[in-house]
Amino acid sequence: MFALHEGLDRDTRPLATWALSRVLLMNDSQYPWLILVPEREGARDLIDLDPKDRAILVEECARASAILRAMVRPDKLNVAALGNVVPQLHVHVIARFTKDAAWPKPVWGVSPPIAYDEAGYHKFRTDFRAAEKARP
Amino acid sequence: MFALHEGLDRDTRPLATWALSRVLLMNDSQYPWLILVPEREGARDLIDLDPKDRAILVEECARASAILRAMVRPDKLNVAALGNVVPQLHVHVIARFTKDAAWPKPVWGVSPPIAYDEAGYHKFRTDFRAAEKARP
Repeated sequence: MFALHEGLDRDTRPLATWALSRVLLMNDSQYPWLILVPEREGARDLIDLDPKDRAILVEECARASAILRAMVRPDKLNVAALGNVVPQLHVHVIARFTKDAAWPKPVWGVSPPIAYDEAGYHKFRTDFRAAEKARP
Repeated sequence: MFALHEGLDRDTRPLATWALSRVLLMNDSQYPWLILVPEREGARDLIDLDPKDRAILVEECARASAILRAMVRPDKLNVAALGNVVPQLHVHVIARFTKDAAWPKPVWGVSPPIAYDEAGYHKFRTDFRAAEKARP
């Protein structure tokens, strides 16, 4: 019964499907930015998941963090479930650099997204899959 | 060996100490806003915690969310570990309303904080403790 919210579908490119979450690439090449969407219909907030799913989600956030850290060696990782605009529960996992466009502010709303071109998306996906395999 | 970062100490008022985290009230009366700080010296990112601590942390985030939901019936809950300014690992748990000062944007940097007066802090703490007791 799970369907990805159209706002998330529009703003992202697919990367993987894990035990609980669909893993998406935010289509903004300014930041290495993953989005995890637990495939639980109707979930809006973290507390809408049951404790078993929450335990899986936090480990999937850690795995996404470890993959980004291995891929791009960021200065900081941001992990956030906001959902003020798109209500479907989703978690941002963002690699941040002290020289990125928004630092030290949160990334949302600071500068308009710059979409990946096809080659950029395919390169990210290839690198992601290599880092993912090393961190099962 | 754990010591609260001076930036967190300055911007918050104490509320509770849970199994893993110190629970703080962000001293900005515009938003019902808790901060959880896992008492693990040197932790900066979620992946700096071991999996056992992460499992506790996500349940403490859920407990904080449930307490805020019971206290103020928000329209949305924001849960976020950013740490671009204060590097010590801390998780924001914020009750959001469609009529609050920042909606639908994230709260950070939108409008200058408005500190609680003593009566406001004591009322929040009293209400927090009542909601906490009902959700052990």
